[in-house]
Amino acid sequence: MRAASPRRVLVYGCGVIGTSVGLALRRARVHVSLEDVDPAARAQAERAGAGVRHRPGDVPADVVVIATPPATIAPLLYQAQVRGLGAAYTDVASVKSRIVAEAELIGCDLSTYVPGHPLAGRELSGPAAADVDLFARRPWVLCPNPATRFPTLRAAWGVAAACGGEVQLLDADEHDRLLAATSHAPHVVSAAMAARFARADDATLSMIGRGLFDTTRIAGGSHTLWSEILEHNAGSVADVLEAVASDLAAVTRALRARSPASDSVSNLLHRGNVGRRHIVAAEDR
Amino acid sequence: MRAASPRRVLVYGCGVIGTSVGLALRRARVHVSLEDVDPAARAQAERAGAGVRHRPGDVPADVVVIATPPATIAPLLYQAQVRGLGAAYTDVASVKSRIVAEAELIGCDLSTYVPGHPLAGRELSGPAAADVDLFARRPWVLCPNPATRFPTLRAAWGVAAACGGEVQLLDADEHDRLLAATSHAPHVVSAAMAARFARADDATLSMIGRGLFDTTRIAGGSHTLWSEILEHNAGSVADVLEAVASDLAAVTRALRARSPASDSVSNLLHRGNVGRRHIVAAEDR
Repeated sequence: MRAASPRRVLVYGCGVIGTSVGLALRRARVHVSLEDVDPAARAQAERAGAGVRHRPGDVPADVVVIATPPATIAPLLYQAQVRGLGAAYTDVASVKSRIVAEAELIGCDLSTYVPGHPLAGRELSGPAAADVDLFARRPWVLCPNPATRFPTLRAAWGVAAACGGEVQLLDADEHDRLLAATSHAPHVVSAAMAARFARADDATLSMIGRGLFDTTRIAGGSHTLWSEILEHNAGSVADVLEAVASDLAAVTRALRARSPASDSVSNLLHRGNVGRRHIVAAEDR
Repeated sequence: MRAASPRRVLVYGCGVIGTSVGLALRRARVHVSLEDVDPAARAQAERAGAGVRHRPGDVPADVVVIATPPATIAPLLYQAQVRGLGAAYTDVASVKSRIVAEAELIGCDLSTYVPGHPLAGRELSGPAAADVDLFARRPWVLCPNPATRFPTLRAAWGVAAACGGEVQLLDADEHDRLLAATSHAPHVVSAAMAARFARADDATLSMIGRGLFDTTRIAGGSHTLWSEILEHNAGSVADVLEAVASDLAAVTRALRARSPASDSVSNLLHRGNVGRRHIVAAEDR
């Protein structure tokens, strides 16, 4: 499909993702206007060069990008559609199914909305952490539903392409199931490891190496945002966490029993080696 | 303490750590001779510039560095001492207590042996993955026991310093307890996450991002070596894994119950944020 390159985009939400979208679109010579419930965040994004302040009398945008936490997206979409802020609407949240259900429930027009998710993020938040290259050559998932009109999809595709993202189309349920394994559950696992150091003494902290540093990087993500994400994808995330916890319990039992390394311990480490090879190969593609 | 800069070092074991020790010592103008049960690994380390082949008639080394897997260290130490290969002996394994106990049991001379552990490693193994800067400004733990003679400690300290490491003295039991939290348990947690991808389909692999990539980096480490490490520190590692698994189980229950994010989920993510801040601060020091 040929993407429709947008001329005017309204970015609603000036966190790290929204501001990065603004920066990337500005570089692609798209007109970007910015809005945020927090005027300070909006002003900071403006100063960073992510766009100009949105004003009530502005002409409607080709695309409105809602870049706010998951629980706020459906209500903001509804308001934006009522106010006629754009011809097409998309969002950038890392959960999709429940947002679509909420949008349908409160009476949003699903024909002009296509849920989106650029697979890029940072453990840092706020406009200061924005990066113009955040989406370059990264997957940008769009989840059209049966009601989505073709021009809506084409417009959202144009935003993703202008930001340098590589569009993939997925069903919203499928997206959530896949992301539970590749992003949401890993976040909890990383947090559970990092949590061991919430009250660490100096002797422990002096023994920290690069391995733990990397394993816990994503645990730095905003706990309020991530609580919402996990709540929105609870069932699929619980399935993955259960499998991880079960593996850890088996290893713990084997270590306590001082049983030979040939069984549970070695088996899990070996499966970890295989999984890691697949992950490295996927990143190298 | 002033380290005694060694003139001659014998590195026994030409894996990633032994070869890196050889490279770092050679750069510091130390004479290094190399030995390995696998002549191909030894020859590769030699070609990389990590030292020259050890020959039976060589004069004794100031320090013999045993850089082999944990279970082999005590027997190799015994043989090396019987053959009189050096004046002082150390090793680089990431577990310490059981090796000391084994060494004592089989009759090694503990007065000329000080257990060591440079806190540096790679998920890659073998001489080809060696790095002359692997130990630069990284902690290098030495665990003298009551029998260790002062010149032995001074000689091992000299090897660590010549490699660029920063020596820390620790009791062997304390070392193992600390490393369970900062290195050994994180390895299992990373493996348990990576193991979910041992049979991943293409759709799942296409949704992998940097977060999972970093969280699973150390899962690439040799499963045979790590089985040995975990077996050598079973009790302490089991304690940490139990705590991680218990946190994951609590989150799973909360997600299944669709309980509000205010409790277990948010609580764990918040503790993860605090722990991560401590980890980042420790690395920045």
